[in-house]
Amino acid sequence: MGAKGLTIGVFDSGFGGLTVLRELLPLVGDAHCVYLGDTARLPYGSKSRETIVRYALSSARFLQQRGAELMVVACNTATALAIDELRDALPIPVVGVIQPGAAAAADACREQGTTPRVLVLATQATIESHAYARACAALGLEATEKACPLLVPLVEEGWIGEEGDAARASVTAQVLRIYLGEALRDAPESRALLLGCTHYPLLRTEIERTLAELGRPLRVIDSAQATARAVARVLTENGIARGGLAGVCEANRALDEVGEATCEFFATDSVRKFKRLGSRFLGRPVGEVQLVDLGG
Amino acid sequence: MGAKGLTIGVFDSGFGGLTVLRELLPLVGDAHCVYLGDTARLPYGSKSRETIVRYALSSARFLQQRGAELMVVACNTATALAIDELRDALPIPVVGVIQPGAAAAADACREQGTTPRVLVLATQATIESHAYARACAALGLEATEKACPLLVPLVEEGWIGEEGDAARASVTAQVLRIYLGEALRDAPESRALLLGCTHYPLLRTEIERTLAELGRPLRVIDSAQATARAVARVLTENGIARGGLAGVCEANRALDEVGEATCEFFATDSVRKFKRLGSRFLGRPVGEVQLVDLGG
Repeated sequence: MGAKGLTIGVFDSGFGGLTVLRELLPLVGDAHCVYLGDTARLPYGSKSRETIVRYALSSARFLQQRGAELMVVACNTATALAIDELRDALPIPVVGVIQPGAAAAADACREQGTTPRVLVLATQATIESHAYARACAALGLEATEKACPLLVPLVEEGWIGEEGDAARASVTAQVLRIYLGEALRDAPESRALLLGCTHYPLLRTEIERTLAELGRPLRVIDSAQATARAVARVLTENGIARGGLAGVCEANRALDEVGEATCEFFATDSVRKFKRLGSRFLGRPVGEVQLVDLGG
Repeated sequence: MGAKGLTIGVFDSGFGGLTVLRELLPLVGDAHCVYLGDTARLPYGSKSRETIVRYALSSARFLQQRGAELMVVACNTATALAIDELRDALPIPVVGVIQPGAAAAADACREQGTTPRVLVLATQATIESHAYARACAALGLEATEKACPLLVPLVEEGWIGEEGDAARASVTAQVLRIYLGEALRDAPESRALLLGCTHYPLLRTEIERTLAELGRPLRVIDSAQATARAVARVLTENGIARGGLAGVCEANRALDEVGEATCEFFATDSVRKFKRLGSRFLGRPVGEVQLVDLGG
């Protein structure tokens, strides 16, 4: 038995949240996932708290109207700045990406012994909120936070190793050397590196390569994976998925049979661009995408 | 006599349009300029036509409500995709940045003899609209259009020669070598380079340096300057500024006396960020900025 018939809402400012959906799908049985990319108003990461709260609330309300019984805030910026407002406004469980990411980082650091310190890479707005530092502190973990505003445009433009040409990929490598070099100088005792933006899993190979070049091969933690596991736990705890997490995983077989039919995609801007870019993040083709106007 | 008492509306998705306002101020006497940066919804350059038209109309209507009697669309993307809709919707003269930029490029190419071909750098949305190619063709000029989506984030992050450190500036130089190298391979006979995005004047020195390195020191045309002159002409032609362009320029003395009082700034997102980033584009401190909610 899985989360049969359950509708899970997942939203992000754009495509990045599809890395969370990608990890989520194998864990939630035959649930129906409704994804919204608020692409007309992206990026959230460079905007103010007030604006991000307003955008996150309208995105979440849209998904609730589409039947969501559990909400995944698959956007670090929206989680950092609007999770409390979302929990106040919605009568359903709300799972963000920050607490699960911080918990996974704490586990990884503890495995490696003392001085639990993690380096968190994220957008400007996420970093300025210090949401990761607070979530880590609550788990006895010290966080060094580093804003990396150019990584999202570099990922969206595909200036990445395998996709881009060598000259383009070397620009991304140079940007990573600047960001990681500065961050590791500020926090030489870091034990792990947490990807605090849903775009960054697409740079994981490049980040690991740069860490090795800098002589600091930190363990890289992907909050998308940690968030997917947290959602599965919420389903279990709420008795939505009978048989616990194992049961949820078992139900994955049913999901394979149902296939693409369990996902529905909405975007507030060009559906053509969403299909093209989104497939890169989801790791498989995005099917039908419906345009929605949130009044922005 | 200048454009006394006249209110001029100027809008952009963000800060870039301030490069147009900067060129405009010395030419419009004691007019009152009301600037709106639609920062809550920036960037326009990566979004769809439908979304850009909707945003441009709401920005322009706001400025009209604030008394604008002439509208300057100080955003290449909004001009490229929404100028017709803006002219249909507004009962006042509307000046965009594309036609003046194309005319200045045509003049520059003609000065240099035959094969009039210009290279246009702009955002993805502006390039995909082919608005520059059409405006140039109408003037007997062939345009090669090159989308440079990473230049706006690099400018906004200040990864520029004088402002950034050497490592950051070298990233921007490498990105320019990639974009300009590709563009000049595609259009080796280009005679001039047109900056088709209001962010790009801040990269003018770097662009000229890269062109020299590539052995192609093309003349660089700034559409912000050309647009400012076009606005002054519209004022003259409409009899708003008596005494023609010379009279408008003469009235500049009055403007110097009035000083900052002739500008009013609005932004749809963080006014703090607008002040900080905006000053870089305006070339002098941006004073008071008022937050406005366009419902996005």
